[in-house]
Amino acid sequence: MSELTKILLDESEMPTQWYNIVADLPEPPPPPLHPGTHEPATGEDFAALFPKALIEQEMSQERYIDIPGEVLDVYRLWRPSPLFRAHRLEKLLDTPAKIYYKYEGVSPAGSHKPNTAVPQVWYNAQEGIRKLTTETGAGQWGSSLAFACAQFGLESEIWQVAASYRAKPHRRTMMEVWGGKVHPSPSDLTEFGRSLLAQDPDHPGSLGIAISEAVSEAIEDPKTRYALGSVLNHVLLHQTIIGEEALLQMAKVGAVPDVIVGCTGGGSNFGGLAFPFLREKLKGNMNPVIRCVEPTACPTLTKGQYRYDFGDTAGLTPLMKMHTLGASFIPEPIHAGGLRYHGMAPLVSHVYNLGLVEAIAIPQTECFAGALQFARSEGIVPAPEPTHAIAAAVREALACKESGEEKTILTALCGHGHLDLASYDKYMAGGMEDLDLSDEVIAEAMKGVPNIV
Amino acid sequence: MSELTKILLDESEMPTQWYNIVADLPEPPPPPLHPGTHEPATGEDFAALFPKALIEQEMSQERYIDIPGEVLDVYRLWRPSPLFRAHRLEKLLDTPAKIYYKYEGVSPAGSHKPNTAVPQVWYNAQEGIRKLTTETGAGQWGSSLAFACAQFGLESEIWQVAASYRAKPHRRTMMEVWGGKVHPSPSDLTEFGRSLLAQDPDHPGSLGIAISEAVSEAIEDPKTRYALGSVLNHVLLHQTIIGEEALLQMAKVGAVPDVIVGCTGGGSNFGGLAFPFLREKLKGNMNPVIRCVEPTACPTLTKGQYRYDFGDTAGLTPLMKMHTLGASFIPEPIHAGGLRYHGMAPLVSHVYNLGLVEAIAIPQTECFAGALQFARSEGIVPAPEPTHAIAAAVREALACKESGEEKTILTALCGHGHLDLASYDKYMAGGMEDLDLSDEVIAEAMKGVPNIV
Repeated sequence: MSELTKILLDESEMPTQWYNIVADLPEPPPPPLHPGTHEPATGEDFAALFPKALIEQEMSQERYIDIPGEVLDVYRLWRPSPLFRAHRLEKLLDTPAKIYYKYEGVSPAGSHKPNTAVPQVWYNAQEGIRKLTTETGAGQWGSSLAFACAQFGLESEIWQVAASYRAKPHRRTMMEVWGGKVHPSPSDLTEFGRSLLAQDPDHPGSLGIAISEAVSEAIEDPKTRYALGSVLNHVLLHQTIIGEEALLQMAKVGAVPDVIVGCTGGGSNFGGLAFPFLREKLKGNMNPVIRCVEPTACPTLTKGQYRYDFGDTAGLTPLMKMHTLGASFIPEPIHAGGLRYHGMAPLVSHVYNLGLVEAIAIPQTECFAGALQFARSEGIVPAPEPTHAIAAAVREALACKESGEEKTILTALCGHGHLDLASYDKYMAGGMEDLDLSDEVIAEAMKGVPNIV
Repeated sequence: MSELTKILLDESEMPTQWYNIVADLPEPPPPPLHPGTHEPATGEDFAALFPKALIEQEMSQERYIDIPGEVLDVYRLWRPSPLFRAHRLEKLLDTPAKIYYKYEGVSPAGSHKPNTAVPQVWYNAQEGIRKLTTETGAGQWGSSLAFACAQFGLESEIWQVAASYRAKPHRRTMMEVWGGKVHPSPSDLTEFGRSLLAQDPDHPGSLGIAISEAVSEAIEDPKTRYALGSVLNHVLLHQTIIGEEALLQMAKVGAVPDVIVGCTGGGSNFGGLAFPFLREKLKGNMNPVIRCVEPTACPTLTKGQYRYDFGDTAGLTPLMKMHTLGASFIPEPIHAGGLRYHGMAPLVSHVYNLGLVEAIAIPQTECFAGALQFARSEGIVPAPEPTHAIAAAVREALACKESGEEKTILTALCGHGHLDLASYDKYMAGGMEDLDLSDEVIAEAMKGVPNIV
């Protein structure tokens, strides 16, 4: 069995519950705060943004939450997703390590994002909501939400970071194929957008700005709500189906991970893979090192501060305690793909702060070098985001070659790069630069962060 | 079991033999002819182009041919591919029909083409060949060959039809990610290319021209051979793994097809799906209607003549008896995707001529309308080529709605459209036109076809 390339699960083996790590943590995570009073936020503070069922999940202490049947029906379009043993990459690297990767690029939108888009849309539909607004950067999340809205007959309206909107017209088309309505952000449709365009008509935008625009549209209409693609507890909850499946798949071949590496932007792919394994680690059933991998151009965990900050640039959201570079942070355009949100999921920040997981930052040219090795051996062309996880797995595998250790490495290939080939072109042409975000830039962006102790 | 969305096979259930329909046909197919003597071609006539093992397969009468172990190892990166039951499309169409689709977009290159690229490269490698040349249109085949060459350490050099090279830079990048060297065709690297560029520096190119360039490069170097992505017997042979898997998968859920529809360009996807089912039909085990679907802009079967013609524009290949629009045919640039080769696989032409399969042509706007219905229900965004098969399946399903018949429809979704979103953009913006190829255009292109009786 260990010679398999793909470890598959039947639809009948698909997990039917999501896992909520809050139930098992040694300390509870710090609560979100009301932006005005700085008191712990209540469900009411989120009511204009999210449906009741998702707010309940956001605040839930329950260990397991049932996945609704209609959500499972849509999941079956691509789930359970395959777990691969990277035999051919191992051979290329000449390593004694065993590398496994959980592949989420089999979803219609090409990444892990539909795992949460589908339930988010379903819960909204149950409460009579007719339209969802959201932001998107590289486009993975926006296309996932448009796909999910098409499944349940809701409208979707998406603010895409202007720099990506201009550079990636095909992602916009993909959202439109699924019926989505797409605007560049900043846009002239919101007051905040208009104020930014007045300063700079060619404003490149940022995720924080696009969130502000999408939120401000949602709160004006009682039949419209907002959807977020990462960061929040309920998003990470939905993504745990990745790790729950991977646990079953590893068990099928008798493999136990020594090292788990996952890329972190907002933290949902990482949390989705790692939290079920962290549960097993806390229970003493295994003892993997669990490591976040982020870009040196947006080093939220490794250089950010663990502080209360807003989720968006205009300051419309509740305050969350998280590792942050400051909500006004604008990433450099030279950074190729995703993983550029100013903050980190509060749950990932909390487990990092507790010392339960590690974090490293890797420069993007090393990531693309690893991605080329991966594509030429395993075939799949990775999205820029998981190239960080691949580069970390390659580092680990080469260390095993040095030491002779036969470690079992597990990572998540959270999406394919079919719509990111311009970045590969730039890398192969030698035009890709690295950036170590300087302390000065971070200090500047941190100036606007509320001073809460 | 019939409620499954995806019918999967384990790696251990993957077929280990390809099926050669020549062994079961009521009449043998007409042989290829030497272009000079017009006598039946011998293996020697193909020796500068292909390795011995592939020439043997091209001429083989054996019913089953073993798939080499190292080819199976690479197949396992994505095979067995899933068979889907299109529950959500059926619901959208409100049809009593049951629609199944075999999805080949799970391969690294995103289509069925690696099924033959991988064995072609492997057989060449076994005979000491170091480089393969080929042509590509939309880019599916070129990227598949580049991927396969990366797996076995061969160089790949690819002439891409100039119109596609300019319109689809990301396909070129994908080929380069896998180490491929890509030229627009016509190019200044070959005599034939230079002669065409002298007439028109902005020549849009055609598959026939790109084949001529790739062939002329291959025959000059004893360590270089040529690879073709469709049309030939050995290519269709390799693709039969699609149909062999689909037979096993249909049997798993107790389904028997009443109608099989597949898109036809060169014929390899269609032959790959249909031939194993045609075998069962000839044996009396089932009785499906089997239907080719082609674009009205390139209606090879429905409007072409069944004649001996060259496979390429310069007349370098042996003559093959096939349905053809004439080797000098240049497709109109308004035609969105693929399926634009002047000829049809001799084996598909032969079974069509024998009345064993049917053929229809569908205009591309109907195809894209069906593709949008498909994407919004099933999730996957299809490549332009299989939108023809989808449109035919939708026609059939709507006829069932009228008649109340609960037919079982089987089709192949031979690739995803992640690199073809510009065509969707054009369609959704209302800018896509249909073309019924006129008899005059065909008569003009047929003038150069040799007069052999």
